[in-house]
Amino acid sequence: ILSKRIVVLSGDGIGPEVCQEAVRALKAVADKFGHDFTFDYQLMGACAIDATGDPLPEATLDACRRADAVLLGAIGDPKYDNNPSAKVRPEQGLLRLRKSLGLYANIRPVTAYDRLLEHSPLKKERIQGADMVIFRELTGGVYFGEKGRNEDGSAYDNCTYSRFEIERIAHRAFQAAEARRGKLTLVDKANVLETSRLWREVVQDISLQYPKVLVDYLFVDNAAMQMILSPKQFDVILTENMFGDIISDEASVIAGSLGLLPSASVGDETALFEPIHGSYPQAKGKGIANPIATILSAAMMLEHFGLQEEAKSVRKAVDNALEQGVLTPELNAKSPYTTEQVGSFVAYGI
Amino acid sequence: ILSKRIVVLSGDGIGPEVCQEAVRALKAVADKFGHDFTFDYQLMGACAIDATGDPLPEATLDACRRADAVLLGAIGDPKYDNNPSAKVRPEQGLLRLRKSLGLYANIRPVTAYDRLLEHSPLKKERIQGADMVIFRELTGGVYFGEKGRNEDGSAYDNCTYSRFEIERIAHRAFQAAEARRGKLTLVDKANVLETSRLWREVVQDISLQYPKVLVDYLFVDNAAMQMILSPKQFDVILTENMFGDIISDEASVIAGSLGLLPSASVGDETALFEPIHGSYPQAKGKGIANPIATILSAAMMLEHFGLQEEAKSVRKAVDNALEQGVLTPELNAKSPYTTEQVGSFVAYGI
Ligand SMILES: CC(C)[C@H](C(=O)O)[C@@H](O)C(=O)O
Ligand SMILES: CC(C)[C@H](C(=O)O)[C@@H](O)C(=O)O
Repeated sequence: ILSKRIVVLSGDGIGPEVCQEAVRALKAVADKFGHDFTFDYQLMGACAIDATGDPLPEATLDACRRADAVLLGAIGDPKYDNNPSAKVRPEQGLLRLRKSLGLYANIRPVTAYDRLLEHSPLKKERIQGADMVIFRELTGGVYFGEKGRNEDGSAYDNCTYSRFEIERIAHRAFQAAEARRGKLTLVDKANVLETSRLWREVVQDISLQYPKVLVDYLFVDNAAMQMILSPKQFDVILTENMFGDIISDEASVIAGSLGLLPSASVGDETALFEPIHGSYPQAKGKGIANPIATILSAAMMLEHFGLQEEAKSVRKAVDNALEQGVLTPELNAKSPYTTEQVGSFVAYGI
Repeated sequence: ILSKRIVVLSGDGIGPEVCQEAVRALKAVADKFGHDFTFDYQLMGACAIDATGDPLPEATLDACRRADAVLLGAIGDPKYDNNPSAKVRPEQGLLRLRKSLGLYANIRPVTAYDRLLEHSPLKKERIQGADMVIFRELTGGVYFGEKGRNEDGSAYDNCTYSRFEIERIAHRAFQAAEARRGKLTLVDKANVLETSRLWREVVQDISLQYPKVLVDYLFVDNAAMQMILSPKQFDVILTENMFGDIISDEASVIAGSLGLLPSASVGDETALFEPIHGSYPQAKGKGIANPIATILSAAMMLEHFGLQEEAKSVRKAVDNALEQGVLTPELNAKSPYTTEQVGSFVAYGI
């Protein structure tokens, strides 16, 4: 019997709806396997700004620090998007949370589900069998470098990477590659950027410790093309923060729906799990949001807890929903199920 | 009768082969329309390093400065790619050339050719009718910011943008949008980067001068996804240097072959025209390189000279090659034509 404290940051838009279904799945796991999971709901994002003026209130951060894991729905509200001069933005809360919790490795598995191939914009023969994991550095680079305005009105963003920041995520990526098909692709822009050249040096050095892993290097522009031309070539992709943001969202098209893709953001102390989709405010409250990405994020949380059997039972229940077509409208236009129906079907199958 | 001095930088790999065919097309135009084009061949890239130690010798830069336009094949050699400590790299020549000639706007049209839809990795219904132009800022941003190593071994790359740098390319992009379908999409990361917020401010300001243009703002991660999910939504895309590098290479998959896509890099003084593909060293000398991207780059050069009729006749000849299947192996596996055969067919049709 395991006892785990999980902080839930439902966030904005469809965040609360999808979190509810992931929590339902986690409760079903606790019931079936006799674990004790407690859920502590805290504010983050636009809802936190509305309530407290701060996208990441102290109380939320404290709760996350004390938790065994964090489940995040989605944050963001259009009222902040086209307002470049807004002083407080929901995203700041997310970035501060990642940094404060030391979540340096964002891990995004991308799989082409056989049953959903027709939903991808890519031709079937290109994606069938595609199965990769993207390791994106999450607490460094241009996201967290100095930024601001100069006196002449120009703006700047600085990107820095230390050896240590590269090493710790590189080791995780190499270990994942060892446990998978043994290939690691570093995505960088070493023909232009000094930080990329450092990434290449460090990865070349570390690769000596993983003789079974084949290392490949791709420039990010080429990678953006290869991701669509031949996604099956990828096993583990390792990249820095900004490139990872772009490449991993691009890779999501392979799965046929953003609503299927989970992610884990891990550090040495704790970990956060969230779907890769956004807060999708237009869909809020309509029951059309796909909860599977969040449920699969919960499965990654279980694996993080060392609960492999439990995670498997969640994955099986999700596979069953895919198999039976118990899916939200974007994947089953003919006889769609609601967010809650999909979540209940999965929970019931655990 | 027009008299024009064109510098040809054939470069490395397949560069010389494809340049030869573009020059053939330009000579056919000169013959037919009675213009006087002179071609001045100069060294740049790996071949220039081999010959002079410098990827952009003074003589080359001088010749480009005095020319009416520059035609570039491709540069790059694998011997420099996985050697992060190489002191001299072919790419440095290209970057220095862009900066020295003030080529601040890289313009890349991307079209889904009806006859080649089957060659795209994307499903036909997603791309049929897609037709966009990407305006990538080319002489600023992280490419040209300060970069280096700190004493502690960390590396840095700084990104800076001034209002002026954004304004001059934004005006070009808005003008293009006015002359096309009237939509401009700014791709940035304004939820994280200060430079992106400046881009958004400047574009919002400038948009007031172009009331007929509808302006849309997309975060780069979302844009990387939208480019594949629904490319038809795009008309003119405007973006900074690094994002443009990634997004425009990604967009190339829509056309079905990299070998079809031309580009222009223009400044206030001169302009450079090049295919977007690389030097493809594995294909060198085999006669399998597609010359169409370079020939269409020559057509853009003619338009730049104000020779609309002449450009049209080149485009028509290219369309005819596509129509008749006079194409290199990647687009016509069954009865492929050589680089020279495709080039001759086009030149003959002018
Ligand atoms: C919301 C935004 C700041 C964030 C990022 O860029 O990291 C998001 O796009 C993501 O990938 O989690
Ligand atoms: C070769 C490289 C420096 C260059 C760039 O990144 O600009 C290339 O990818 C391009 O897009 O022209």
